[in-house]
Amino acid sequence: MVRTLLVLLRSSRIVLLSRGGNILGADVFVPHNKNVFYSRSEFIFDPVRWARVQMDEDFLRISKMFDATRSVVRVPKLDPKFKIAVIASKQEHCLIDLLHSWQDGRLPVDITRVISNHDRGPDTHVVRFLERNGIPYHYLRTTKENKREEEILDLVQNTDFLVLARYMQILSGKFLQSYGKDIINIHHGLLPSFKGGYPSKQAFDAGVKLIGATSHFVTEELDAGPIIEQMVERVSHRDNIQSFVQKSESLEKQCLAKAIKSYCELRVLPYEENKTVVF
Amino acid sequence: MVRTLLVLLRSSRIVLLSRGGNILGADVFVPHNKNVFYSRSEFIFDPVRWARVQMDEDFLRISKMFDATRSVVRVPKLDPKFKIAVIASKQEHCLIDLLHSWQDGRLPVDITRVISNHDRGPDTHVVRFLERNGIPYHYLRTTKENKREEEILDLVQNTDFLVLARYMQILSGKFLQSYGKDIINIHHGLLPSFKGGYPSKQAFDAGVKLIGATSHFVTEELDAGPIIEQMVERVSHRDNIQSFVQKSESLEKQCLAKAIKSYCELRVLPYEENKTVVF
Amino acid sequence: MVRTLLVLLRSSRIVLLSRGGNILGADVFVPHNKNVFYSRSEFIFDPVRWARVQMDEDFLRISKMFDATRSVVRVPKLDPKFKIAVIASKQEHCLIDLLHSWQDGRLPVDITRVISNHDRGPDTHVVRFLERNGIPYHYLRTTKENKREEEILDLVQNTDFLVLARYMQILSGKFLQSYGKDIINIHHGLLPSFKGGYPSKQAFDAGVKLIGATSHFVTEELDAGPIIEQMVERVSHRDNIQSFVQKSESLEKQCLAKAIKSYCELRVLPYEENKTVVF
Amino acid sequence: MVRTLLVLLRSSRIVLLSRGGNILGADVFVPHNKNVFYSRSEFIFDPVRWARVQMDEDFLRISKMFDATRSVVRVPKLDPKFKIAVIASKQEHCLIDLLHSWQDGRLPVDITRVISNHDRGPDTHVVRFLERNGIPYHYLRTTKENKREEEILDLVQNTDFLVLARYMQILSGKFLQSYGKDIINIHHGLLPSFKGGYPSKQAFDAGVKLIGATSHFVTEELDAGPIIEQMVERVSHRDNIQSFVQKSESLEKQCLAKAIKSYCELRVLPYEENKTVVF
Repeated sequence: MVRTLLVLLRSSRIVLLSRGGNILGADVFVPHNKNVFYSRSEFIFDPVRWARVQMDEDFLRISKMFDATRSVVRVPKLDPKFKIAVIASKQEHCLIDLLHSWQDGRLPVDITRVISNHDRGPDTHVVRFLERNGIPYHYLRTTKENKREEEILDLVQNTDFLVLARYMQILSGKFLQSYGKDIINIHHGLLPSFKGGYPSKQAFDAGVKLIGATSHFVTEELDAGPIIEQMVERVSHRDNIQSFVQKSESLEKQCLAKAIKSYCELRVLPYEENKTVVF
Repeated sequence: MVRTLLVLLRSSRIVLLSRGGNILGADVFVPHNKNVFYSRSEFIFDPVRWARVQMDEDFLRISKMFDATRSVVRVPKLDPKFKIAVIASKQEHCLIDLLHSWQDGRLPVDITRVISNHDRGPDTHVVRFLERNGIPYHYLRTTKENKREEEILDLVQNTDFLVLARYMQILSGKFLQSYGKDIINIHHGLLPSFKGGYPSKQAFDAGVKLIGATSHFVTEELDAGPIIEQMVERVSHRDNIQSFVQKSESLEKQCLAKAIKSYCELRVLPYEENKTVVF
Repeated sequence: MVRTLLVLLRSSRIVLLSRGGNILGADVFVPHNKNVFYSRSEFIFDPVRWARVQMDEDFLRISKMFDATRSVVRVPKLDPKFKIAVIASKQEHCLIDLLHSWQDGRLPVDITRVISNHDRGPDTHVVRFLERNGIPYHYLRTTKENKREEEILDLVQNTDFLVLARYMQILSGKFLQSYGKDIINIHHGLLPSFKGGYPSKQAFDAGVKLIGATSHFVTEELDAGPIIEQMVERVSHRDNIQSFVQKSESLEKQCLAKAIKSYCELRVLPYEENKTVVF
Repeated sequence: MVRTLLVLLRSSRIVLLSRGGNILGADVFVPHNKNVFYSRSEFIFDPVRWARVQMDEDFLRISKMFDATRSVVRVPKLDPKFKIAVIASKQEHCLIDLLHSWQDGRLPVDITRVISNHDRGPDTHVVRFLERNGIPYHYLRTTKENKREEEILDLVQNTDFLVLARYMQILSGKFLQSYGKDIINIHHGLLPSFKGGYPSKQAFDAGVKLIGATSHFVTEELDAGPIIEQMVERVSHRDNIQSFVQKSESLEKQCLAKAIKSYCELRVLPYEENKTVVF
């Protein structure tokens, strides 16, 4: 490995230094007994000596040369932010937290629109916030018969990925296939336990001493997609169902924000059928 | 509450100060809408002015006077330690940790005997340790047909509670009833998820980012008794099934030791049908 | 203690049940060898049967009867929220977090005004937010010669306590005495280490593996007042001074919010000369 | 980086696969604006196809080829364990924990001897344990005038590194230079705060809400060497100086064991004058 890493550094000299760049760090993960590897690297470069377009060309050429199945390069300050749409229901804590984080510049995305299957008056905090910031808000009433998926699909065409901020509907396989990009969901239970509805209630009834939240990719199977991040907090006999919910909501916000941030920093890679690599 | 607390202090003056004692702290928990309360208090006293026997009399009288369903008083340095028996199988990490903690004086119990359904040679570390410290070791081979429960029952008659340190057998309801006292078990999964066998494998296959351990009271239903303590640790894509097991074992040891310590300090009270109060 | 606690419960019956109330929980702390005690209790009651005024009378009478040095009763939904003023400088992350928490109803206070010694244009996020929500914003330019303390004092007269959200000025003993109420400060270092300026830089240069934040009461001595809450987060060689600052700011927000919440729930009591009891 | 990583993989094919090996993972850290890099990699290989001696030759050649300042290769199951000597004083908790971890196979080192400046009788747990396991125990009484450093030096000649398990003497610069290898110390305070004696007392008097432990390399300046690992635990007003000490000791054991384990896995590299890279 020493050699390969020196080669790595030397290559980085050849590739990056020649372009006025330098590696800041690299993560490499090679699953045991699998002829595949995952990696993520950070480097700095001189934009004058390495044009963004040239950079893409360089990496494309290289990745082709080595049959890389996937190769993504992002320059945080040059490239446009990831475009997302947030889909929510009645519960607002995750949605509001995302909006505030976005406003404070802590969430590195552009929120193109917010879609909700819960009706909010024009005078509600959320709707006023969105109006003030020029973010379209769409109320799409869903019923057993009509999930409004075609309309949602139209609305999210130009997004890079979707965020379900406590959306209380299951998206169909048809929708997932049509959309074809990643969808991140937040669940206030330590998956795989407490799937489905009222996980706080389930946890409370089970008398647990730790509650958690899980952010994961959406798949056809409910709450069974690859896990990105999980967080926990202690509970005791003094906690009631209300404080379980409160603590869960606080965890959900942190856990969802962390997952989105990691995703935007290209730290999250799909791994095997139902796992993730998170560098 | 101010009054009640001043009354509390005044009563403590009446009861305790008169005996040369003083309260150090009190925890009171009153479940909402239930005409019951749980409490734990610590106090210091002058053994010369308050004989141990007298103390029991005082508290017995008081608890009767107020129809307390249960009242336990312990004086750590005067009263005999809780007598326990440890029951294990092949996995030794919890057993060894208990023995070391006991030897270092960190586990406030007397280990009366160790029972195992896994055969260990006389030259193994565990057996030599037990021999050296005069703790009887019993190998009871179990089969589908014969769980040896009668023999176990005979061996643990004089214990205050039992500890299952990774015992891979399910104790029958008949055994639980006959023994009639508390039994603490350790499970290397965040119950109620990953019940039963190979929880580490279950967690690994589920691609979780947090693994845990749970110490709980044993009931007839497998891994479903009231939870006493739960602990977690982060795992990542770099962890394999071996490191999952290693981290789980480390959690199991801490979680079991914490539960036993809390139990011996009278911090653990049964609450509702399947919960605990842990002061 | 059993008796005193039963007395406590019986008294609670006499006092509270007679008023349609019931205890939910009680914490009592009696420092060793000190003839004093601290306590906090939560109870529910029927406002129809126990008028708020009557409640105060009852507790006042009782506290007098027992020479309680201090006795505070609050009914979250009946009593007015604590009035605070937030004082800040150029750094906005804590101020903005407080405003958002207040807007989301997570911060149980009324923010009467925001005072800053850093000039913000009328079009800045903070100033627009305050204007929109009718919260006065005061820019008071401070100099070595003039700390503007008299003006600040006038502005905060009607507050219950003050919050220093990264205020980069040391308040004089004269100010503290004149104000006479509690002032909560946030410091992004694990006090008592890294006092004063640039704690993140200090921590970075020290090569620590954990950074923290501390919320504490303000006293005349810089960063030496009683500590209310401390939080930490891991850092590694991959962290640079910028990420140290980022993580510190995230900790500061959580740590300050937690301290304010605990304070408003009457969980924080001064203890000895430089400590706190936090129930 | 894609190229460099494919190059890495290709090189790994050239170097490792040709030897029947494969990379499992790699960490690379390149400090900003410094023409240096740090890396650690894990790989598996076929010992039949790649002799241990050959492996060293290969890596030596490579490291020379690339002017690597330092290159270490270890094969956990083939190479001899690191030889250490443990130096202690009266406090035994860290020493005993190290001995138990070593006995349980959790500490990947050979303890060649234990040196103490505190006199223990032959019937003490520690001395009997050492005798039983054939580990020499040396009592070297130290005085202001005579630190017995020459004798210690003689005793530790054949060690790979030293562990100070609560050794209450400051080793001279002369000793450090003569020994010339790494020395790991444990301190029960969150350095750089609470240096020197009685850190628990210092923390208690400061009214902190978090206490910690720090494992670090020993340098001439007391408690100021590069930090390897830090851990914390919550304390409250209910904790007294005794429980501060207890919690600190528990942290010390975990923190020291973690540092030794990381060190033996070649995860710890010196970085700049007073920092560490811990992969």
